[in-house]
This record gives sequence, structure tokens and C-alpha cells, in this order.
Amino acid sequence: MPTGKLQAKEIRLVSRPQGEPTPENFSLATVELPELQPGEVLVRNTFFSIDPYMRGRMNEGKSYILPFAVGKALDGAAVGQVVQSRDPAFRASTWVLSFCGWRDYYVAMGQQLRVIDTTQAPASAYLGVLGATGLTAWVGLNDVAGIKENETIFISAAAGAVGSVACQLAKLRGCRVIASAGSPAKVAFLKNQLKVDYAFDYRESDPLRQLEIAAPDGLHVYFDNTAGPQLEAALESMRHHGRIVMCGAISGYNKPAPGPRNLHLIIVRRLRVEGLMVADHLHRMPAFLAEMIPAVRAGKVLHQETVLHGIEKAPDAFISLLRSGDAHIGKLVIRV
Amino acid sequence: MPTGKLQAKEIRLVSRPQGEPTPENFSLATVELPELQPGEVLVRNTFFSIDPYMRGRMNEGKSYILPFAVGKALDGAAVGQVVQSRDPAFRASTWVLSFCGWRDYYVAMGQQLRVIDTTQAPASAYLGVLGATGLTAWVGLNDVAGIKENETIFISAAAGAVGSVACQLAKLRGCRVIASAGSPAKVAFLKNQLKVDYAFDYRESDPLRQLEIAAPDGLHVYFDNTAGPQLEAALESMRHHGRIVMCGAISGYNKPAPGPRNLHLIIVRRLRVEGLMVADHLHRMPAFLAEMIPAVRAGKVLHQETVLHGIEKAPDAFISLLRSGDAHIGKLVIRV
Repeated sequence: MPTGKLQAKEIRLVSRPQGEPTPENFSLATVELPELQPGEVLVRNTFFSIDPYMRGRMNEGKSYILPFAVGKALDGAAVGQVVQSRDPAFRASTWVLSFCGWRDYYVAMGQQLRVIDTTQAPASAYLGVLGATGLTAWVGLNDVAGIKENETIFISAAAGAVGSVACQLAKLRGCRVIASAGSPAKVAFLKNQLKVDYAFDYRESDPLRQLEIAAPDGLHVYFDNTAGPQLEAALESMRHHGRIVMCGAISGYNKPAPGPRNLHLIIVRRLRVEGLMVADHLHRMPAFLAEMIPAVRAGKVLHQETVLHGIEKAPDAFISLLRSGDAHIGKLVIRV
Repeated sequence: MPTGKLQAKEIRLVSRPQGEPTPENFSLATVELPELQPGEVLVRNTFFSIDPYMRGRMNEGKSYILPFAVGKALDGAAVGQVVQSRDPAFRASTWVLSFCGWRDYYVAMGQQLRVIDTTQAPASAYLGVLGATGLTAWVGLNDVAGIKENETIFISAAAGAVGSVACQLAKLRGCRVIASAGSPAKVAFLKNQLKVDYAFDYRESDPLRQLEIAAPDGLHVYFDNTAGPQLEAALESMRHHGRIVMCGAISGYNKPAPGPRNLHLIIVRRLRVEGLMVADHLHRMPAFLAEMIPAVRAGKVLHQETVLHGIEKAPDAFISLLRSGDAHIGKLVIRV
């Protein structure tokens, strides 16, 4: 058991990326953890999450409520096991979820931790299909879009963490699912593993032409994880009174680009476009888990993840994630 | 009283505008009206409406449900008086509202006409503050945005037909109203006649800077009649969970332009953006008139209009309207 002199590793933001992040924007630092005070818990992270939204927090400015601080450790969702506890609610070995990612060990107040049940699903699933990622897809489809059976839905970045859950939930709801991703391997995954109705590689084909083929009668719902050209194509393909869930805008995270030229279709087609941040919907977690844990256990929803080993891999994994390449499918996590 | 040999004048679309319309896109034609058949009514238009949305209908393509046909008369809202009737529901001299604008005389089935009460308000008001124009503002604020007392709302093209009604209704609801327009005379009208809280000329100043001054705590609602740079500025200024009513996009009607670079703020700020076409809301007309007729009679809502005389003035009036110049304030109508 470590003592108060434990050395912990953490990934820091050392400079704000200009455009695409580079390895030089990050550093691996070692810090000495303090002695536990009453109410505090020492946790060893097993997995932490790498998410596209983190790019926004690397920018300065008031747009994002909580920009990452330069010179400080990054953070994000993580699961790990309690090593030592001065909070009576936590015993050693208990699995906990926190927002203390990008580090191997950390000290936190017990109130910052949520116990997870690893007898129901593997620990890393609480970062993906059973975590904020899965909740995002579930809330977006149910509460924001209000999807109905037999509707046609287009999901971009569909092989990603949120997209891969959204595809499966929409299929379970009886929707026709059109899915896009950025590589042949991802498209094969969408077709063969997630059993979507139509999948295409947005880099190798014209999204508008693909949507015309896949949805000649138009889209009821677009679950947008990318913005950019795919949003423009989706707008062109929306049915009257269609709904667009704006969940992510990865195409512009490194380099903001002008928006679609056809926003007037929001008027012509009487569309509703709504932005989704999962932080507003955490009260839906119990209802979400009540549905999802049995679905995952029954194999109705796959927990697809890509695991990279070693905290030092995190910066490159993040850089690659924003390139939307073939490096990962499903949820991207670091195993510490 | 005219006979079946009556010559009627109409404005036709002779070619589809490329970019800004020119007088050559239109012609003034004379047609011979047919003898009245049972159920038909001959009407002499007194006023017809010139509206920005008509530009969209001049384009070809599936985006607009009903593009105007080349070589045929244009149409749009109009008020006039029955000349001769073979529908027992209509007598000579009765004032009627129709969608048979851009012409002086026309023959229509009685079912296509709605009787208006010119003892309550001047006939032309049924094209403006008491017509689809006013209903658009009323539905946008009440049903789409759901404005509440003490909220801050920004209205673009605020000296225009819809905007000028929206400003007044929002003030009556107890909102703080920030309004923009494209000339000093319009800004003076907004301040002095409509008594908005803050008005600026979007051509002479930076809209984002103006919004920062006028609404340091941000906007609850943006009533968008322009899209373009003012939409970008409004997005930047929205409060969390703000609502944007997309009612018009006049900045791009002649020349579609890329959309704002900051659409990701729809996610970050959890905004709801909704497109409004008044045709979906005609069932709200009785509730709207029940509120508006007394408000207009009591002088609480001004019926501001610019009247041009002569059907032949219509093409130039339309061209000028899209330039957003100083030529008109409020509703633009042609007096035949």
C-alpha cells in the first residue's frame, strides 16, 4: 500500500494548441501526492477516457465555461479502484467513477466519486456505453429528438463513442439508421457489427449523394457529431419538421470553418435544431442505466471500445481521435 | 361594372434572377379575364404585399415547395373589393383578402377569399400587422420562442414588416428589446416610434460589439430575420438555453453565403433553433386577431407601412426591399 509519499503521473497541457494539437502541447509530469485528510480517498485509475469535446476546453476564452489551465493536469472521466480511504463510504478495492482522468493516482474527496458495479459490466463500460457517452446518445435520441419507430435517422461519426451507441439504440427503437464514418474499417464495423441499414465513408463519397440514395424520402432526424459538410448534406436531406440534435462538431474542433450555406432550410423545412450537453441531463442517469445495463448484459447493445495501454499514450491518442482516422473504433480509453 | 371582356394587368416572372433581381426579370402583362362561372368572384385589388420570402420562390428547385413559374403571374397576399360575384357568400364592395397579389383584377373561387372587416382597421393592415406578417411575429414570439417578461430579445430587420410587429409585441410582453436595421432613418423609427430599448445600424457598426453593449448578460431570445453576420453575432451573445426563431434569412436571399463559424455554440450554450413558416400556424389566426385588433385600435401596436402607388412599381419595390435600404419602413405594399 502506497504511503503519503506516493509519486503520481499526470498529463498536463503545457500550451494551447493552435489548430491541430501536437505532442508538444502536452507533458507527462510526476507529482507527489499529499497525505490523506479526513474525507479523502486515494484512487488508482485503471482506465480514463479520451473525448473529442476536450479540444474545446484546450482553447482560451469565455465560450467554454471551464477551459483547461495551461501548466495543469487535464481531466475527464476515469474509472479506478480505491487504494486507501479516509471516507467511511469507500473501502479499498471499490471501483469508482470520477472526473479525475489523465493521471494514474489521485486524491479526491469521497463526494467526487461514484461507486460502479463491475459485476454488471466491465469497468471501462462505465466510460462508454454505460457512462456519459452512452447517456449522451440515449438523451439525444429520446429526450431531444424524440425518435419514433419507423423514422429514418442519420448519424455521423457513427463509429465513434457516442455514435456507436446511438446507432444501436435507434435500431432497437425500430428506426432506419443511416451511418457515416471516416474509414473502410469503420464502415465495415457499422454494417457488420452494428447492423445499421446503410453506412458510408464520408471521405470517399459525397454525403449528399449518399443520403439521396439511402433516404430518398428524407430524414426525420439527424444526430450530428461532426457539423461541417455532413451537416450541410443533412440539412438538404431533412424532411419537413425534422429534428437535428447537435451533439458534436468534430469537423471544426481544430480549425473552425464557416457553417453550411443552406441554413435557410431550417426555415423552409421548419426544422428544430437543439444543442445537447450531457451535463444538463445527469438526472436521467438512473432511467438510462435501468434500460442499458440489461441491454448490455443481454448483448443487445455492444460495448465497443479501443484500449491503448499506458498513460503516456494519451496525447497521441487524442491527436489521432481528432483526425478521425482508423486508429480507433467505439470508445477510446487509456488503460493506465 | 366590367364585363367578361375586362382587361386585367399582372406582373409576371419572365426569367429567374441570378443573384440580385433586375427589372428585366419581370414584365407587366395584360390578360383578358374570363366570364364568371358559378362560384366565382371578380375582385379588384386595392393593395398587394411585397415580401422578402418571394425571392426564394423565384429560384428553381425542390427546396421551395411552390416556386413561381416563369412566364406566369407572381402571387402573394392582397386585399381588394368584390366587383361581381357568382358566389352567394360575396356581395359587390365586400373587402376580401386573397393570395392573388401582383395583379389589379382577378377571378377566383369564393373559397379562396376571406372577408375582412375594414371597420376595425384599414384594409392594408390585413396585409401587415393584422395579416400573415403580424401572425408571423406573434407566433414566433409566443409559440416558438415562448418569450417571458423581463427577457432580453434581439430582433434583426426590426424596421421591416415582421420585425416592427415583433418589436412592439415583445415590448408589450415586458421584454427588453434590442433591434437592428439598415439605415439611420430606420434606427430612428425603432427608437422614436417603436420605443425599443436599444437600436443600432448593422451596416455602420459591429453587431457583436453592439450586442455586448446592449446585452452584457446575453440574449434569451434572438428573432432572426437576416441570418448572416447578425446570426453569428447573436450566437456569440446567446445565454445558455437561449432560443433562436429563424424566421427569415434576407442577407442570403440574393446570394447564398456560408453560415456562421460559431454554430458549435448551439451545443456549448444548449440552444434551441427553430424554423418558422407562418403557413403552419394559420389555425392561430383567431387568437391572434382577438388580441391584435383591440391593440391596433387602442394604438398600442402601430400599423407602420410604406405604400407605393401603381402596379408597375412592384418589381422595383421588390428589388429595393431585398437591398434593405431606406426606401421603406414597416410593411411594403403596392396600392394598385
